[in-house]
Amino acid sequence: MADLPLTEADRLTDSAISGGADRKPLDPADRVWVGFDLGGTKMNAVLFDRKFETLARRKKKTRGAEGVAAGVERIRSTIEKLLEEGNIDRGRLGGIGVGCPGPLDLDEGVILAAPNLGWKDVQLKKILEKEFNCPVWICNDVDAGVYGEFRFGAAVGARTALGIFPGTGIGGGMVYEGKIFRGRKSSCLEIGHIPVVIDGAVCGCGRRGCLETVASRLALSAEIAKAAYRGQAPHILRVAGTDLANIRSGTIREAIDAGDDVVEEIMRDGAKYLGMALAGAVNMLAPDIIVLGGGLVEALPKLYVDEVAKSLAKHVMPSYLKTYELKSAKLGDDAGAMGAAAWTRYCVDV
Amino acid sequence: MADLPLTEADRLTDSAISGGADRKPLDPADRVWVGFDLGGTKMNAVLFDRKFETLARRKKKTRGAEGVAAGVERIRSTIEKLLEEGNIDRGRLGGIGVGCPGPLDLDEGVILAAPNLGWKDVQLKKILEKEFNCPVWICNDVDAGVYGEFRFGAAVGARTALGIFPGTGIGGGMVYEGKIFRGRKSSCLEIGHIPVVIDGAVCGCGRRGCLETVASRLALSAEIAKAAYRGQAPHILRVAGTDLANIRSGTIREAIDAGDDVVEEIMRDGAKYLGMALAGAVNMLAPDIIVLGGGLVEALPKLYVDEVAKSLAKHVMPSYLKTYELKSAKLGDDAGAMGAAAWTRYCVDV
Repeated sequence: MADLPLTEADRLTDSAISGGADRKPLDPADRVWVGFDLGGTKMNAVLFDRKFETLARRKKKTRGAEGVAAGVERIRSTIEKLLEEGNIDRGRLGGIGVGCPGPLDLDEGVILAAPNLGWKDVQLKKILEKEFNCPVWICNDVDAGVYGEFRFGAAVGARTALGIFPGTGIGGGMVYEGKIFRGRKSSCLEIGHIPVVIDGAVCGCGRRGCLETVASRLALSAEIAKAAYRGQAPHILRVAGTDLANIRSGTIREAIDAGDDVVEEIMRDGAKYLGMALAGAVNMLAPDIIVLGGGLVEALPKLYVDEVAKSLAKHVMPSYLKTYELKSAKLGDDAGAMGAAAWTRYCVDV
Repeated sequence: MADLPLTEADRLTDSAISGGADRKPLDPADRVWVGFDLGGTKMNAVLFDRKFETLARRKKKTRGAEGVAAGVERIRSTIEKLLEEGNIDRGRLGGIGVGCPGPLDLDEGVILAAPNLGWKDVQLKKILEKEFNCPVWICNDVDAGVYGEFRFGAAVGARTALGIFPGTGIGGGMVYEGKIFRGRKSSCLEIGHIPVVIDGAVCGCGRRGCLETVASRLALSAEIAKAAYRGQAPHILRVAGTDLANIRSGTIREAIDAGDDVVEEIMRDGAKYLGMALAGAVNMLAPDIIVLGGGLVEALPKLYVDEVAKSLAKHVMPSYLKTYELKSAKLGDDAGAMGAAAWTRYCVDV
């Protein structure tokens, strides 16, 4: 993970730059960075040295239901313990980056709403900057993952890196000319909400026929549960019953391996829809590298990714066919933390 | 049209910067700019002073069928005559910008293919730089129009300006953080080729079910011609017959005014599709200003734009509803020439 190029600041060992608003200048060569991936169920926090080697890491349950105050305290104490574990003085913190579920106010560093956590209007940047006396940047969790892949993983060197993470929903993010692509205040790349079926099924966003309604793991799990109920997926019925909450990516892979052919067909259908929507995105954005990640991709690295690739190639404009590479994500669970930390260093140093 | 802010170079009346590769330094205050909109049927060339006031203009037929050499000579002589008309010495040319039909190699300044003109591999940048001894930039014709609207028209001040121009096809372009958004080598934003109908009609790009197959003026004219043939559009039948080549934007407006209700319905259907595809684009790109332009928009400023707006609002994610403005283009036919010239100045001065 040592392939993040050193910045000008890193090289200036004689000089020094200011990290926080009101603290002593910090020797750039001493700086460490915290990357924090704030998920709906888990938080993943990693402490990096200036070369982005890992100094310490902690995973915890998020427990959003305990409320904002308890949640923010868990974030604070997790960072505290990271520093203890790495034996690092607070004063060496170059910055903290947090990948958050959206919608966010990126400039103010506020989580406007995180429905999965039941949180609203959390001034995360302000709170953490006060607590740790260092710069804090928040970004969308998917953007953090895509930026991580762009700096350290599958999308290094891309002019335009488009990342798609099919899971319970379908997340998207983009790095363009070295920076996270964003809206005026908030993040974007909501590829899961491209309309693909006219007057289709109701989506979590409140609209109908979005890509998520036909291609997210949740949508596919529901199709699989129906097949199990009809007796067409005996392995699923045995291990998961007809409760779609039990039909996770791993279960799906096992069922395909065990010969539940209808499960394979359902997964291929989902991949076809994703490839079609992705073709529209490629026609608009002309990414040179497309990164596919998330649970489904990890569980079905060949079947699912191949089907997406085939459908994308079938629907994309012929003149774009040779202009992109479709790759699987490389960094797994650490992409978000690495990306959030590296993005913060970028924002601090630029 | 004088609202282009002066650049640093404009203010440096004492100093001088280099315009061409091998000519005398040019006083920035003296610089003039040529914007050239190279269309499939017409070319529009405008000469601007440093404040982007018009000094001279010329329109000509493109006559692409006469071949590349003749076409390039028409471009050259048109610029020559512009300079004569404006009584401007060649040495004062700050740069020439040409908005071209795609696909292009933006860095090398090559028209790779222009099917409408029958041209291939035209080294336009190299040829014009040699001829006029000044910097030349080419860009996609739609991008030029969107950049024009961003600098002088409906999208001034946008962080992300998305432009959509429904016509024979459906062109798209985007200006992001002050720059034309592009792929690694070529332009993008091919919103006309977002797949919207699974296994739909054959598209000019070689795929099926693209937005253009259901929402371009060509697609809608074909529906209208069918209605005329069936006797449902008497005004159309009278003035245009059933030849879709005769059913232009103006004809469509006249037919609606004359009471051909089915024509209105067909136009509204096309606008609905466009709004739906646009919703996907907005969910991905979070533009703060969306500019609609082109013949259909000019012919049906209220009916068509309102229907697009309604459909967009119906399909876009609810959290994006208040984040964009949908506006009609302001600059008309000059958008491309102004944008190409201003983009060239931007590229020269940055």
